[in-house]
Amino acid sequence: MTKPLRIALAGLGTVGGGVVKLLDANAALITRRAGRPIEIVAVSARDRTRDRGVDLSRFEWVDDALTLSARDDIDVVVELIGGADGPALTLARTTLAASKAFVTANKAMIAHHGVELAGAAEASGTALKYEAAVAGGIPVIKGLREGAAANVIGHVYGILNGTCNYILTTMEKEGRDFNEVLGEAQALGYAEADPSFDIDGVDAAHKLSILATLAFGTELDFGSVAISGIRHVIAADIAEAAAMGYRVRLVGLAEESRKGLFQRVHACLVPLDHPLAHVSGSLNAVVAEGNFVGRLFFEGRGAGEGPTASAVVADLIDIARGEYGPAFAMPVASLARPGPAPAGERRGRAYLRFTVADRPGVLAEITAAMRDAGVSIESMIQRGATADGSVLLALVTHVCPERAVGDALNRLEGSQSIVGKPMLMHILDI
Amino acid sequence: MTKPLRIALAGLGTVGGGVVKLLDANAALITRRAGRPIEIVAVSARDRTRDRGVDLSRFEWVDDALTLSARDDIDVVVELIGGADGPALTLARTTLAASKAFVTANKAMIAHHGVELAGAAEASGTALKYEAAVAGGIPVIKGLREGAAANVIGHVYGILNGTCNYILTTMEKEGRDFNEVLGEAQALGYAEADPSFDIDGVDAAHKLSILATLAFGTELDFGSVAISGIRHVIAADIAEAAAMGYRVRLVGLAEESRKGLFQRVHACLVPLDHPLAHVSGSLNAVVAEGNFVGRLFFEGRGAGEGPTASAVVADLIDIARGEYGPAFAMPVASLARPGPAPAGERRGRAYLRFTVADRPGVLAEITAAMRDAGVSIESMIQRGATADGSVLLALVTHVCPERAVGDALNRLEGSQSIVGKPMLMHILDI
Repeated sequence: MTKPLRIALAGLGTVGGGVVKLLDANAALITRRAGRPIEIVAVSARDRTRDRGVDLSRFEWVDDALTLSARDDIDVVVELIGGADGPALTLARTTLAASKAFVTANKAMIAHHGVELAGAAEASGTALKYEAAVAGGIPVIKGLREGAAANVIGHVYGILNGTCNYILTTMEKEGRDFNEVLGEAQALGYAEADPSFDIDGVDAAHKLSILATLAFGTELDFGSVAISGIRHVIAADIAEAAAMGYRVRLVGLAEESRKGLFQRVHACLVPLDHPLAHVSGSLNAVVAEGNFVGRLFFEGRGAGEGPTASAVVADLIDIARGEYGPAFAMPVASLARPGPAPAGERRGRAYLRFTVADRPGVLAEITAAMRDAGVSIESMIQRGATADGSVLLALVTHVCPERAVGDALNRLEGSQSIVGKPMLMHILDI
Repeated sequence: MTKPLRIALAGLGTVGGGVVKLLDANAALITRRAGRPIEIVAVSARDRTRDRGVDLSRFEWVDDALTLSARDDIDVVVELIGGADGPALTLARTTLAASKAFVTANKAMIAHHGVELAGAAEASGTALKYEAAVAGGIPVIKGLREGAAANVIGHVYGILNGTCNYILTTMEKEGRDFNEVLGEAQALGYAEADPSFDIDGVDAAHKLSILATLAFGTELDFGSVAISGIRHVIAADIAEAAAMGYRVRLVGLAEESRKGLFQRVHACLVPLDHPLAHVSGSLNAVVAEGNFVGRLFFEGRGAGEGPTASAVVADLIDIARGEYGPAFAMPVASLARPGPAPAGERRGRAYLRFTVADRPGVLAEITAAMRDAGVSIESMIQRGATADGSVLLALVTHVCPERAVGDALNRLEGSQSIVGKPMLMHILDI
């Protein structure tokens, strides 16, 4: 099998440029590992004139990426356009329908349309690969699909968004507030001009829903991921969490039980002795807990030109080796549809932070609401009044049903003692 | 493809029993993931009467494992006998020669005979798989062979022996000495009655040589691994290292450069901000640094019934899916033979600990030897005299060629001021 694997790149942004650079730089080694050369035949992007820092004149330029699907001289279409729908999805459908292998880094499209596309790949006997869609260069799709395949997975969770982790760990190191650090991250190019996709947890939720499908053998169910982000984390939350032995991380967590599939993206408190507490800066990490293997921990760079290109080309090497496999670790007909777990039944500890007026009876009011909701308090910190006269109260509950914490907060709704919205973060007790 | 994958187990120790339990417990899920059932047809071991905690009466018992190779009703032979040579090797050769897939957890055999066996698998068009041979349940063979396959790897290194890591981290937590902790580990079953294979670094070296082959595309070269273990680490080394910001870990490290292949297993000092510093107890961890992906970190359980069985069955699922691939990530004819890198040319910092007589001039003698060898000192700790009148002197050098540190120690050989053998540990500055 020394015929080259002939590929076309659709989309030439950061990742597309990275793939070209990688295939140039590591060509000889890749040929040895793949058993044959991987050759770019054609490229396509919106703007032909943009300088991408690589010589593209060697490749045929195609204005309409859709024409790539039908060409006999192309074995694999690599989609790096992005977007859950639109041209990326049309390209995926036409490519797989034409029995051509399809590689993508597009987490939104896989989260929304992955089952349909995997079914199309199966029907055509071709490959759908998307290692780059989750956690960038970390081979975690492969780790779950193949490495941990012998296990019933209890939980899969991780730090799936480098922008949020950069912001949270910078807030932690420098004691600064969210908006300030976000602004700086935007200036440095670590955060997008419109950062909401990252900081509100949507990007992490796309990735989580993909991991859950691989871990549990369930259909993709992005719609039932409970999503919140990191906008409401203040410097004091991070400081109080540290005082109690925790770090704050945006964690995507999925669990499966007889009650259904639980999926949540949420800023949460991670105990210092948990490996996720040591994941710093823009790194990503994924943990899977299997019934035989125990805890597996994967860490690395979750985004950027090099790591993402590494994952895309790993998929291409798999295809060159003839290792197609089922996209979601099993035929789509075998995927279960457990439905979402009922909200609030999950049990755990929670962190609550209130900003309260500095006057008698406030503590009694809050602790009474907790008691009436059946929530007992494990530890509490109250700091003296700040410049504006308000007082910060942070507490950690004992283990209780999550709905009980929600009930306690409902009982406090409208309280004249509490300034602004209380902050709730769950504690990662896994 | 709904025909079952029919396997035979040769060897029914801890891991063999684990494979039976895993295939029982997770049968339905494995059938979905593998696309077909994985069925044990026959088993073989030395002692038929031993109670292994699983019902083996369902399977055909075979006294002579070698007969498994020739049987038409078996697709895969799983070798869990152990030993670099002897019955395990004969079974591997006859099985692969019979074009039957072969799965093993045998690191010694792969380290010594892996290239021969991979060649035999290639010639027969069958699979040789050995995920369980390195780092137990952590899918690091797959991670390097496939996940990081697009990268030129600069270094691969890790904590590859759980017994040593358990001993070192227990010494660290409890401030106790090596022999005491080893004795306790033996009593608890965490260390073998004859522990030398583990604590002298041979087991880690087997695994390292396999990782190096996958990372660099070089032939296995176990013979050129520089090996030392943890016998000479004393509680004071761990305490002084901690005082200077390090933890002591047994690390296997391989690097490739134009000078050749460098492979070493050595107790070394790991800076606290390095992920290996946080690998505790009997866990294993592997780091690979790729030119595009950056640093990849994998952590998990490196031994034991469950994790090892998880890796063996992952290999079986790959085979059931028809994903054979080249055993060492490329055809054996493509593996390079760089030869070992010349000793001593590597540059780095080192930790040295001397036990010295408490009298004038000792410090001058040691520092003069360091100066004459061209080694400058970054930091030094001297503790007051102990009960027997000796004084402990620990220092960390600046970056210098490793041979210079050796030269300094040679100059001090025979010194009347130094009691016993000085301790040398390199610092992991990657």
